[in-house]
Amino acid sequence: MATLSDLNLNRRALPAPLPLDSGRELPGVELAYETYGELAADGGNAILLFHALTGDQFVASDQPLTGKPGWWVRMVGPGKVIDTDRFFVICANVIGGCMGSTGPSSIGPEGKPWGMEFPVITISDMVRAQVALLDQLGIGRLHAVVGGSMGGMQALSFAANYPDRAERVLAIATTARHSAQNIAFHEVGRQAIMADPEWQAGAYYESGKGPEKGLSVARMAAHITYLSEAGLTEKFGRRLQDRDSKTFGFDADFQIESYLRYQGLSFTNRFDANSYLYITRAMDYFDLAEEHGGMLADAFRKSDARFCLISFDTDWLYTTSDMREVVHALNAVAAPVSFVELSAPFGHDSFLLDVPALDRVMKGFLE
Amino acid sequence: MATLSDLNLNRRALPAPLPLDSGRELPGVELAYETYGELAADGGNAILLFHALTGDQFVASDQPLTGKPGWWVRMVGPGKVIDTDRFFVICANVIGGCMGSTGPSSIGPEGKPWGMEFPVITISDMVRAQVALLDQLGIGRLHAVVGGSMGGMQALSFAANYPDRAERVLAIATTARHSAQNIAFHEVGRQAIMADPEWQAGAYYESGKGPEKGLSVARMAAHITYLSEAGLTEKFGRRLQDRDSKTFGFDADFQIESYLRYQGLSFTNRFDANSYLYITRAMDYFDLAEEHGGMLADAFRKSDARFCLISFDTDWLYTTSDMREVVHALNAVAAPVSFVELSAPFGHDSFLLDVPALDRVMKGFLE
Repeated sequence: MATLSDLNLNRRALPAPLPLDSGRELPGVELAYETYGELAADGGNAILLFHALTGDQFVASDQPLTGKPGWWVRMVGPGKVIDTDRFFVICANVIGGCMGSTGPSSIGPEGKPWGMEFPVITISDMVRAQVALLDQLGIGRLHAVVGGSMGGMQALSFAANYPDRAERVLAIATTARHSAQNIAFHEVGRQAIMADPEWQAGAYYESGKGPEKGLSVARMAAHITYLSEAGLTEKFGRRLQDRDSKTFGFDADFQIESYLRYQGLSFTNRFDANSYLYITRAMDYFDLAEEHGGMLADAFRKSDARFCLISFDTDWLYTTSDMREVVHALNAVAAPVSFVELSAPFGHDSFLLDVPALDRVMKGFLE
Repeated sequence: MATLSDLNLNRRALPAPLPLDSGRELPGVELAYETYGELAADGGNAILLFHALTGDQFVASDQPLTGKPGWWVRMVGPGKVIDTDRFFVICANVIGGCMGSTGPSSIGPEGKPWGMEFPVITISDMVRAQVALLDQLGIGRLHAVVGGSMGGMQALSFAANYPDRAERVLAIATTARHSAQNIAFHEVGRQAIMADPEWQAGAYYESGKGPEKGLSVARMAAHITYLSEAGLTEKFGRRLQDRDSKTFGFDADFQIESYLRYQGLSFTNRFDANSYLYITRAMDYFDLAEEHGGMLADAFRKSDARFCLISFDTDWLYTTSDMREVVHALNAVAAPVSFVELSAPFGHDSFLLDVPALDRVMKGFLE
């Protein structure tokens, strides 16, 4: 398998250190990004896509480490819902990430990987970096910002902090605030990573190993939250894996066990454990109301964008009720908003999967 | 802190090896148990209580390792819901456990702790051992069997396999079958334990250490499933732990993080990691319909007991819908059953907490 340094990634350096919500500055920031389609002469056809926790900039092209198709290839491309014959689509790896943007695995000012010396970042720091990238690329007002899950958090944060910079804000399967239960699941993942002796307080890069077992457990725990209980029952139930009867042992007797182990192991080939720590921390810190004096409506008071919010009925990670809080805040400032709860069996992951109603709603909104 | 061998536990050896569902036999079985109240001359006032995954026989007396009150002291005692002035209450540590009954930490036939040589057991194996204990104690037909969570599984298994041995079966917050999601959470916990190098393939007893970090992560993940999302929000929300603002670090900024870490760490002082593996495996294997030809109703066809089933509206681990399947099976064989879904904010843990309606329903049923 290729490693990151083998890849010829599209990268852009930011011209100045990035101010962070913590009060620190991040020097030497580079953002790795992909674009699809062509920027119109007037610059008005650009859509900024934000990726989710474990996503990256490879939206509609093969992920070079795994060779797998982009994470939203069903949605983005010529003639598709986000039509690259019409729109210029940009997606950048978030800061803190591990697909080429500056993160804990990048070489820091002391000439070695940052590790846990990397500053703790926030969702709004991630967005600030991407707005700086837009500035570098000469892109002013966007046709739309679009994102699901953590990508939706970035879309809402963008709307709040750059209120005149996008005509449309499309946020899917997301929340304006991480709940206690959301934080709890992330904390389990972080503790699993930190419990792995190969983590070495984050300084594992030169050891040739890393906290792969811990990261794998973290991914397994998170993965459960991405699927619905009913979806798991339908997909796996209590079916056995390649065997006729239970083995009375600790092998993966059940398909669900085998599936989760695979999800955990394959994740470690493409994701950096420290990035997982930093990005989950950013999500846990996310509370858009708190950032705006405790009143969520105030976050959107200056926005001149149109909003479209989409939740899924089986998503128990970021629920319809979470999304309704955003709707109510937008209503309170008379912002134009359409909101729909879609029915889909896949839980939180519905935004990535084949949900025709999602396509129709998105296409209509982005016209 | 005391260790198990310091304690003067009530133990009874079974007279013969215990046949197991796997086809193996477990030799030299001892059960550690506690009793409360006095057995009536006719033996008709005995109630067998089954404990949950991480519970033990110390229902209404202090747990000797932790010094904490028994896990159901609010429910069991003189004049209480399970009135020990009237009833003789027995609770035994399950086989596979670690509070004195034979389990993976017990000395096996080769003169050293069983570790992973311990046979994989099932819920029905646990019950078989306890019926053998009843035989030893000269107790025939019980006034009732009672249990919540894994204890409820044992109560249902008892009803199915010893259909004339209890007048009443009271099962709370439980299920007749572990779902894919239930298995998934347990598998995360097992992988967390097995990922810990101190686990040493289960042969850690003589090293003076153990997979405490892995066990702690397992407990944290499980603990989330015991609480409701709304309960977590009410109890912790996004409140910070002993600080005025976020630290932009990886300490436990949020109360929920601090709480979970404490739950994980304190668990390792009183529970054996291998026992956690074996008992979760038994729960995952539990499928009462499968044991009875695929038809849950057939499990109860021979029973002459009265049933009372109780679920909680906020329990997402073993839901009201899971319980309804048991109700329908009992209805199908015309068994006398009362079923109630109680409203309580605490999620699965409601059966252990202050829910006055639970007390009333239980008291009425056990009269």
